[in-house]
Amino acid sequence: MVDEHSQSEQQPAAQWRRKDLLGIEELTRGEIELVLDTAVSFQEIAARPIKKVPTLRGKTIVNLFVESSTRTRSSFELAAKRLSADMLNISSTSSSLTKGETLLDTARNLEAMHVDVIIMRHGVAGAPHRLARQVKASVVNAGDGSHEHPTQALLDLLTIRQKFGRIAGLTVSIIGDIAHSRVARSNIWALTKMGARVIVCGPPTLIPVGIERLGVRVTHDVREAIREADILYVLRIQRERQQANLFPSIREYAKLFGINQEKLADAKPGLSILHPGPVNRGVELSPEIADGDRSVILEQVSNGIAVRMAVLYLVCGVRQAADNG
Amino acid sequence: MVDEHSQSEQQPAAQWRRKDLLGIEELTRGEIELVLDTAVSFQEIAARPIKKVPTLRGKTIVNLFVESSTRTRSSFELAAKRLSADMLNISSTSSSLTKGETLLDTARNLEAMHVDVIIMRHGVAGAPHRLARQVKASVVNAGDGSHEHPTQALLDLLTIRQKFGRIAGLTVSIIGDIAHSRVARSNIWALTKMGARVIVCGPPTLIPVGIERLGVRVTHDVREAIREADILYVLRIQRERQQANLFPSIREYAKLFGINQEKLADAKPGLSILHPGPVNRGVELSPEIADGDRSVILEQVSNGIAVRMAVLYLVCGVRQAADNG
Amino acid sequence: MVDEHSQSEQQPAAQWRRKDLLGIEELTRGEIELVLDTAVSFQEIAARPIKKVPTLRGKTIVNLFVESSTRTRSSFELAAKRLSADMLNISSTSSSLTKGETLLDTARNLEAMHVDVIIMRHGVAGAPHRLARQVKASVVNAGDGSHEHPTQALLDLLTIRQKFGRIAGLTVSIIGDIAHSRVARSNIWALTKMGARVIVCGPPTLIPVGIERLGVRVTHDVREAIREADILYVLRIQRERQQANLFPSIREYAKLFGINQEKLADAKPGLSILHPGPVNRGVELSPEIADGDRSVILEQVSNGIAVRMAVLYLVCGVRQAADNG
Repeated sequence: MVDEHSQSEQQPAAQWRRKDLLGIEELTRGEIELVLDTAVSFQEIAARPIKKVPTLRGKTIVNLFVESSTRTRSSFELAAKRLSADMLNISSTSSSLTKGETLLDTARNLEAMHVDVIIMRHGVAGAPHRLARQVKASVVNAGDGSHEHPTQALLDLLTIRQKFGRIAGLTVSIIGDIAHSRVARSNIWALTKMGARVIVCGPPTLIPVGIERLGVRVTHDVREAIREADILYVLRIQRERQQANLFPSIREYAKLFGINQEKLADAKPGLSILHPGPVNRGVELSPEIADGDRSVILEQVSNGIAVRMAVLYLVCGVRQAADNG
Repeated sequence: MVDEHSQSEQQPAAQWRRKDLLGIEELTRGEIELVLDTAVSFQEIAARPIKKVPTLRGKTIVNLFVESSTRTRSSFELAAKRLSADMLNISSTSSSLTKGETLLDTARNLEAMHVDVIIMRHGVAGAPHRLARQVKASVVNAGDGSHEHPTQALLDLLTIRQKFGRIAGLTVSIIGDIAHSRVARSNIWALTKMGARVIVCGPPTLIPVGIERLGVRVTHDVREAIREADILYVLRIQRERQQANLFPSIREYAKLFGINQEKLADAKPGLSILHPGPVNRGVELSPEIADGDRSVILEQVSNGIAVRMAVLYLVCGVRQAADNG
Repeated sequence: MVDEHSQSEQQPAAQWRRKDLLGIEELTRGEIELVLDTAVSFQEIAARPIKKVPTLRGKTIVNLFVESSTRTRSSFELAAKRLSADMLNISSTSSSLTKGETLLDTARNLEAMHVDVIIMRHGVAGAPHRLARQVKASVVNAGDGSHEHPTQALLDLLTIRQKFGRIAGLTVSIIGDIAHSRVARSNIWALTKMGARVIVCGPPTLIPVGIERLGVRVTHDVREAIREADILYVLRIQRERQQANLFPSIREYAKLFGINQEKLADAKPGLSILHPGPVNRGVELSPEIADGDRSVILEQVSNGIAVRMAVLYLVCGVRQAADNG
C-alpha cells in the first residue's frame, strides 16, 4: 500500500499551467495533488474569525449558471468572496442562453468586461470546453450535462485523503445511477488516477456498457460493493430518470440499492460514506446513515469551499503570469 | 409616568448572551434596550460619506428567504454590507426548501460552509427556531408565518423612542388584522415589555380570541382606539385574507378601519403613525396620512438598517466570544 | 472638419452639476465631453491586475431593474464594484413595482435606507425622471421605455471617438427600428450635439413621422445609408414588433435591411459598425459582419463599464459636494 501523500512530498511539486479547469480526465496526478495541497492551505481560513484573505482582490469572477444549483453556486460564491474577488451572479434557465451561439456572445461580452474567471454550469456536455476555447478568461466547469463536475471530484478526494491519510490503495464503491452522473464520471477519473480501486454498482439500466474501459469493476450486487469498500460513494437518484422507466420505482430502488444499517452489516469497520448532496433521505441513503458516524457529507461541503478557493487561485495565477509574460 | 430611557442609564447595561434572535417573546427589557442602544450607535454611520465600518469583515451572512420580501431582504443586506460582512443571498419559493427535512439539510450545509449568521424568512411559524437548535451559526428570524418578526418590532420601538424620548407610559393602538400578523404579535410583546399600553382594534374576525391574555385591551371601535393613542400602528391588509371571507370587502374595510384625516379629528395633537410597509394607499391608510406630518414610516425604514446592524453585531459577538472561550 | 477632442482641451472643462443622468437630450456638449474624458481616465483600471479603486467605498448603489436586462445590469454592477461601492440588486417584473405609486414608495424606501444612486430600468418612458424629482439620491436612467438609454449613447460616443479620434464631421447611419428604439433616440441627441451628421434608415413603418426635426436625414434606401456612412449603427430587431405587423417578416427584414458583406460593397474603407447587443445574427447583422474587422461591438461593451464608472463617479461627486455645502 502506497502512501501517496508522503510520496508527493518527495516529488518536486507540479506546477499549474492550465488557464481552465474543465475536467478531471485531462489532469495529471501531480496536478490533482497540487489542487489538494493548495486547498489544504486555504482550509484554515474558514476557521479564522476573519474568514477572508486579499489574494484575489480586484479580480472579477462570474457565476454563469445556465442550469440552476443553489449549493454549488453558493460554494463558489463564498470561495470567491473569501479570496476578496468581486463576484457577479448570472443565472439563466432561459432558452436564449442555452442556444450555442448566444452562449458565445455572452462569453465574449464577459470577456470584453475584463472578467477573470467564468464559472459555468450548463446542461450540455462540453459547453464549458467550447467557451474556454473562445475566451481568454479562465473557465471553471461547475457541471456540464452528464459529463464532468471536476470540483466535486476534487473535494471528494480531499475528503478521502483527510479521512484516510491517503487515496492510493483504497477501494471506493460508487453506488447509483452511474450512466447519467457527471459526479461518477469525474470521480472515476480522479480516483483511478490517484491509485484507488473503483467499483461501480447499480441497476443494469443505469450502468453504461463498456464502463470497465475506464478501469473500474462493475457489480450489480450492492452487498458485494459494500463488503469490499473502504469508501461508499452514494449518488443522488434523480427522480426524472425513474419517470423515463430506467428503474421500476423509487421504492424498489431504495429497497435494492438504498444504503441503510442493515445492508452495512458486513461493511469494514472504517467504512466512510460520501454523497454529493442533496440527499434524498430514505431513497439512496436512510436518514440514520446520512446523519451517522460513517457519513462525511458535511466534511465534503466544507472542503468544497477550500477546493474552489484553490482552483480560483490557481487559474488566476496562470492568467496573471501570462499577463506579465 | 416612567422614563425608561433615563432609567436604563441608571441600571447596569444588560449583556447580550443569545446566539440567535428568534422572537421578542423571550427577550428581557434589558436586552431590548441593549439592541436599541446599540442601534443608536450605528445610526450615524448612515449619515457619513463613507457608510461602512469594518466591524464584521470576514464574517459570512446568509439571507435565506424561503418567502420572498424585497424590502426586508434589502434592509438586512445593506446592514451586513455596511458592517463589511460577506453576504450570500439564497431565495427560494420552491417546494423543496419548504419541506422541513430539506430545510435542515440546507442549514447543515450552510453550517459546513462556516456561515456566521443565517437570516431566515419562512412561511411556517417556528421554522427559524428549529433551525437555530440544529446549527452553531446564529439565526435571525426575519419573519416566520404569523408568529414573530422581531427586527420589525425593534425598529418600531427605536422609532417610537426617538419620537417620544421614551416608550413606557405611551398608548399604542394597533389597527388591522391582528390575528394573522407577526408584526402585531412581536410588537405586542415588545411594547408591553417596555411599559407601553397596547390597544388592538380590528374587525372581530381578525382579532384572535383570548388576545387579552397578552396584556392588551381589545376594541372594535376605531375612533376609540385613535382617541386614546399616542401612536397608531396601522397594519397592512393582506388581500388574500379578504378572499378567505374574513372581512366583507377591501372597500368596506377601508371605510370602517382605514385611517384618514376625518377619523383623526379627535386624535391627540402629538399622535404618530407607524406602518410596517408597503402601504396599501387608500385601504388601511389614506395617501395624505401616509405622506403626512404624523407619519414616521420612513424613519422606520431608516431605523430598520440600524437595528439590523445592531442585531448582526450582537449575535456575531456572542459567537466570537464562544469561539475564544 | 473640426476635431472636437483637441478643441475640448482648449476650452475650460465643463463641471458636472447634475444630481441625475436621465437622458442625453438635456446635456450640453461640454457635459458629454466631461463624461467621456472621465471614462477615459477609468479605462486603464480594467487592464490592471487589481481592477479596483476605492473611489466610491461606502457608497450604496442600487440596480432597480423593473425590466430585466442581464447585460446592462452586469455592466453597472461591475462598474460599481470596481469603484468599491456596495451594490444592491433589485429585480422585478412583478406588476406591483410597475404601478407608479408603488414605484414611488420603493424609491422613498431606498432613500430612507440612505442609498446614494438608483440605477433604474423601466418599461415606461419618464419613470426615472419622475423618480429623480422625488428622491435626493441620484438616479441614473438605464433605459426607460422607448425614450432614452443615455449610458448606451455615451459608450457609443466613446467608442467612435477612440476609433476616429473625433466625432464632429463624421456621418453615422442608424439602421433599423428607429421608432421604438431608446438607443436610437439617445444616439441621435448625442451625435448631433457632438457635431456628427446622422442618417436614419429603416422601413417606413419603423421611422417616426417628423424625425427630421431632430436634425437627422431620413432614407429608406439602405445602400445609400451605407455609402455615405463613416459609422453604421445597426439596431437590434425586436421580434415582437414584427408580430405587431410593423414589418412583413424577419426574413424579409433581413433581406432588405440586414447588413451583410454584399451590401457593404460600396462602403467607405474605414467604415465601423456598432450594435447595442445582443445581436440577432442573420437578422440585422450577418455573422461574418458581427465578428468581422469593421465591428467594434466588443469595444462598446468594454467602454460601457468605463462610461458607467464615470457616470457613477460624477453623480456621486455632486451629492458629496451638496452634503458638504
